[in-house]
Amino acid sequence: MASKSHSNDEMDIRSLSSSRCHVHNTQYLHKVGVPPKRNLFREFTATVKETFFADDPLRPFRDQPSSQKLILGAQAIFPILEWGRSYSWRKFRGDIIAGLTIASLCIPQDIGYAKLANLDPQYGLYSSFIPPLVYAFMGSSRDIAIGPVAVVSLLLGTMLSSEIDPSKNAVEYRRLAFTATFFAGITQATLGFLRLGFLIDFLSHAAIVGFMGGAAVTIALQQLKGLLGIKEFTKKPDIVSVMHSVWGNVHHGWNWQTILIGVIFLSFLLFAKYIGKRNRKFFWVPSIAPLISVVLSTFFVYVTHAEKKGVQIVRNIEKGINPSSVNQIYFSGEYLLKGLKIGAVAGMIALMEAVAIGRTFASMKDYQIDGNKEMVALGVMNVVGSMTSCYVATGSFSRSAVNFMAGCETAVSNIIMSCVVFLTLEFITPLFKYTPNAVLAAIIISAVVGLFDVQAAILIWKIDKLDFVACLGAFLGVVFASVEIGLLVAVTISFAKILLQVTRPRTAILGKLPRSSVYRNIQQYPEAAKVPGILIVMVDSAIYFSNSNYVKERILRWLMDEEERVKAACQPTIQSLIVEMSPVTDIDTSGIHALEELHRSLQKKGVQFILANPGPVVIEKLYASNFENLIGEDKIFLTVADAVSSCAPKQLVEEV
Amino acid sequence: MASKSHSNDEMDIRSLSSSRCHVHNTQYLHKVGVPPKRNLFREFTATVKETFFADDPLRPFRDQPSSQKLILGAQAIFPILEWGRSYSWRKFRGDIIAGLTIASLCIPQDIGYAKLANLDPQYGLYSSFIPPLVYAFMGSSRDIAIGPVAVVSLLLGTMLSSEIDPSKNAVEYRRLAFTATFFAGITQATLGFLRLGFLIDFLSHAAIVGFMGGAAVTIALQQLKGLLGIKEFTKKPDIVSVMHSVWGNVHHGWNWQTILIGVIFLSFLLFAKYIGKRNRKFFWVPSIAPLISVVLSTFFVYVTHAEKKGVQIVRNIEKGINPSSVNQIYFSGEYLLKGLKIGAVAGMIALMEAVAIGRTFASMKDYQIDGNKEMVALGVMNVVGSMTSCYVATGSFSRSAVNFMAGCETAVSNIIMSCVVFLTLEFITPLFKYTPNAVLAAIIISAVVGLFDVQAAILIWKIDKLDFVACLGAFLGVVFASVEIGLLVAVTISFAKILLQVTRPRTAILGKLPRSSVYRNIQQYPEAAKVPGILIVMVDSAIYFSNSNYVKERILRWLMDEEERVKAACQPTIQSLIVEMSPVTDIDTSGIHALEELHRSLQKKGVQFILANPGPVVIEKLYASNFENLIGEDKIFLTVADAVSSCAPKQLVEEV
Repeated sequence: MASKSHSNDEMDIRSLSSSRCHVHNTQYLHKVGVPPKRNLFREFTATVKETFFADDPLRPFRDQPSSQKLILGAQAIFPILEWGRSYSWRKFRGDIIAGLTIASLCIPQDIGYAKLANLDPQYGLYSSFIPPLVYAFMGSSRDIAIGPVAVVSLLLGTMLSSEIDPSKNAVEYRRLAFTATFFAGITQATLGFLRLGFLIDFLSHAAIVGFMGGAAVTIALQQLKGLLGIKEFTKKPDIVSVMHSVWGNVHHGWNWQTILIGVIFLSFLLFAKYIGKRNRKFFWVPSIAPLISVVLSTFFVYVTHAEKKGVQIVRNIEKGINPSSVNQIYFSGEYLLKGLKIGAVAGMIALMEAVAIGRTFASMKDYQIDGNKEMVALGVMNVVGSMTSCYVATGSFSRSAVNFMAGCETAVSNIIMSCVVFLTLEFITPLFKYTPNAVLAAIIISAVVGLFDVQAAILIWKIDKLDFVACLGAFLGVVFASVEIGLLVAVTISFAKILLQVTRPRTAILGKLPRSSVYRNIQQYPEAAKVPGILIVMVDSAIYFSNSNYVKERILRWLMDEEERVKAACQPTIQSLIVEMSPVTDIDTSGIHALEELHRSLQKKGVQFILANPGPVVIEKLYASNFENLIGEDKIFLTVADAVSSCAPKQLVEEV
Repeated sequence: MASKSHSNDEMDIRSLSSSRCHVHNTQYLHKVGVPPKRNLFREFTATVKETFFADDPLRPFRDQPSSQKLILGAQAIFPILEWGRSYSWRKFRGDIIAGLTIASLCIPQDIGYAKLANLDPQYGLYSSFIPPLVYAFMGSSRDIAIGPVAVVSLLLGTMLSSEIDPSKNAVEYRRLAFTATFFAGITQATLGFLRLGFLIDFLSHAAIVGFMGGAAVTIALQQLKGLLGIKEFTKKPDIVSVMHSVWGNVHHGWNWQTILIGVIFLSFLLFAKYIGKRNRKFFWVPSIAPLISVVLSTFFVYVTHAEKKGVQIVRNIEKGINPSSVNQIYFSGEYLLKGLKIGAVAGMIALMEAVAIGRTFASMKDYQIDGNKEMVALGVMNVVGSMTSCYVATGSFSRSAVNFMAGCETAVSNIIMSCVVFLTLEFITPLFKYTPNAVLAAIIISAVVGLFDVQAAILIWKIDKLDFVACLGAFLGVVFASVEIGLLVAVTISFAKILLQVTRPRTAILGKLPRSSVYRNIQQYPEAAKVPGILIVMVDSAIYFSNSNYVKERILRWLMDEEERVKAACQPTIQSLIVEMSPVTDIDTSGIHALEELHRSLQKKGVQFILANPGPVVIEKLYASNFENLIGEDKIFLTVADAVSSCAPKQLVEEV
């Protein structure tokens, strides 16, 4: 149905007439337009496109010769082919400095994080060698620093050890870890390939802040074992068990030499962090502080032989690069399904972290990241990693920030880091033998401090109380139960919020702003005045099955309240109800039923039912269901002002 | 923060100035209002109130003396105390006719439905005796007819028999049925008491239509057993198994005498239905046809002794009213949990049906139904029923419609029906001994025909294609798998639709309607013209974590497309982006982050970022997060027209 526009009429325009008090009651300049009908196939493809290809990935391919399409296709899979062509010496200078900086930061972190995942230290280093290389070829973020991260290591460690005890069955445990890594990669690549990337958007920012904060606390608490030199430590991750374990060991379990080393270096690291924070020029101070701590403490232990006084050391760290682990992955048996489950969860969390980092830095430098392509890159990277003795790697918040501040230009900084890790694996690992665990614990604590984002939590509290509940719920869930429970709480609250949003849309009463034809919420604009005899209600959401009954009943309740008020104040009774439909973006069959019922109720009361400004989708559906004939086509107006003057010109004139 | 209104300024009003080409560039009549800040407690209680007490149940209690409150409280629990006081002889006349009509309809239906639930026929009658009595005292609907219904009977029969074989362990099966009924009641009452009634709104109208249609087909197919006189019939409910069973028995299993009886009475019943439909005056014809069929066929079988020629008959039906079943309910053991599960599902479906009926007829007669109170009534009714040998009862679509058409006035018609069922149980049941099963099958088929609502499905197809997918999915799920699978499909698609809605909100480009200051979607209003140098985008939904990234990227893509178009057409470059926020009803932390990132991207491009008409909640949160300082408080306008004239007065003047 084409829009029957009255634009050719030589009529005064509505806004003008209302302000001059000339009310033309019967005709208005514009009618509510009915958009041209699309055929079913087009409507369907448009919906699919907006849902799955919102970023229009084929856009550059349009109108290109097929040879060019081939090149563009290769570049789409390997972005390095695109940015590599314009790579320059100047960019390399930035990348090499950044790469060396993140390498010095990642080596001690990797060793610590591997312990969080209950794996031998070299597996952390392995995961900083192969995955960054793969990512450099396939990833599209220029600033992300790839490698093992604290939260995923913790999550993996918790979930894996609930299946297999790592101290008793180290080999099987490791095999399950590779299996989980493999399926984490498959999950990530599949989500990206099926363009289901938007699924990770269902974890709200607030839930992530809480989850990360809780994970930071849990990780820091776990480090008390290394920092205090406690030998018999609980295996449960919750704060109650850990504190019980810590205080239970206070008389016999603590080792003062360990504590001394730990506290000294923790203070040093936190001080370095403080300096880096105060002056961004000194960002490199906290970046190299961990490596300095490792070197100093290792040398100290080696000289004093503190390991004989109960100071625990790394002791054994394999030399050489990643061995193959293809035949260690479980492709059958009971561990296949368990690996799949753990991998899927760990993969999603890793994805969430990487995509959040990628987006943050992309918006800082103003380039676009294709979320789905990014997921495929991360997925392939983890699949390759799982076959080369790596566990789940992703983008690290802290190292990516350092990478950015050190002036990285492209993913080449990841290649540089990878090379340094390679050299470390080949030549330096034996030197880590005497590194005390206390220093690793201190490094991890100082690294996860940044994940505990009080500022963000305060902002969330200020902006949205319900968001804060999600944040707090996720935090408490992680701290008092486990990362999995915390995650579950976060996801549940996030979903509940979405459901609440669609079940209970807001409604508001509109009033006329003095000396204008603009109608606005009277709560927001106290100067807005109600028009006598007319109630104007705005519905603030699509009307769907989940809220149609609520909307109907809420509008009737507004009407009832208003009728009571009017009666008490001896004002003219309500004769018309105008529903401002601008924010009603869509309506379904239940919604139309609700409007029909509303119309029936209003008819019984002798109140006119008028709609203002229904949008394209809504008007199409109202016509499809013949609703416009039910209430009368002349009861649908372009603006609230039109609707008001149609039903009560007298009163309007009185008021103006 | 109080709204700093400029309403006292002696300025020309915006709409006037634009039409007269006087563009006052620096000042506007009204600023965007910031609603007065509410304290946390008030905000919280307001949210809780809108979510759980949207219908304001305590409204009548306000400002009443406490003795009056007591009376009102009793009336709230037992509405009969309220409407009973104004009960009159005139009303009773309507009720008695309606009650007798639904009684004659329910007796044969009850016997058939009990068989659907794999229970002996008298249990159907029991369920039409006690529950309607309880409901009459506690329920608030005046038109609903209470008793066993086809869909719930089928659902219960399917789920119960997957736990216990009713032919082998009839006693245990029955006990589980009472247990499920008990927990169905508990579920219903709990949902109502906790005011969680809105949960049943999550099953969309479309999904219900499909589910009901599928259940109708499944039930009708099951009746082929009785109608064709097949002895060995499949126990699987899906269409493939049933048809296989029917055709496999064609040579030996069918009984021609049974078929004769069945087909004759089915034709009679359908013809009666047709007459009732053609002329609403004859609504009583289809209502008494079932009882007539039962009487005639029973007499016929008794006279001809057709039961000896293979015509299956009811054979045994217990005389007397409901025995107690309190001690038959499983309150411990493995069947406790199973009963709970089955009861919860059956209770929800029963609830859905009853509430839908209640709402439909309430809106026809224009009275209000309190959904939550209604649920408590239904719940208590089923708990009492489970202790008096009833299985799950609820409101029946077909009988409620008959009740309504027969002119019922109050729930007294249910009491009348209950009395008739009582007399039947006490005196007439032995007469049903020779009733052929084929007639019961015919009665059930003619009853469920109405559940298969093709008209509604066509309307759904016309209005919303995605709704139709939900409808079809639920239908096919029930027909080809089972009621449970169909229900699962319906719920899943309903949820997926909600999630899709919040993940992919619509965005649109606005243009100016000629000779007005109104800006509208250019797809809906092809006559609307873009303002040169300015892009106006409307976001059609709250901006939440689930869509914030999409919204940001979609707006940037609109901008990119527009920049390309403008370049190709040699028009002025885009210098301002106005985001029309009217439909943006809420924003959370993720949403504000997205706006900040959008602002940063636009700054890099040298494009101004302007907001028009943010609502009360949005503006409050923008202020809480200091966003208004980031983009500049003078970049937030009351209307799009204000925003446009602020950034391009020259062009506007040129155009007008």
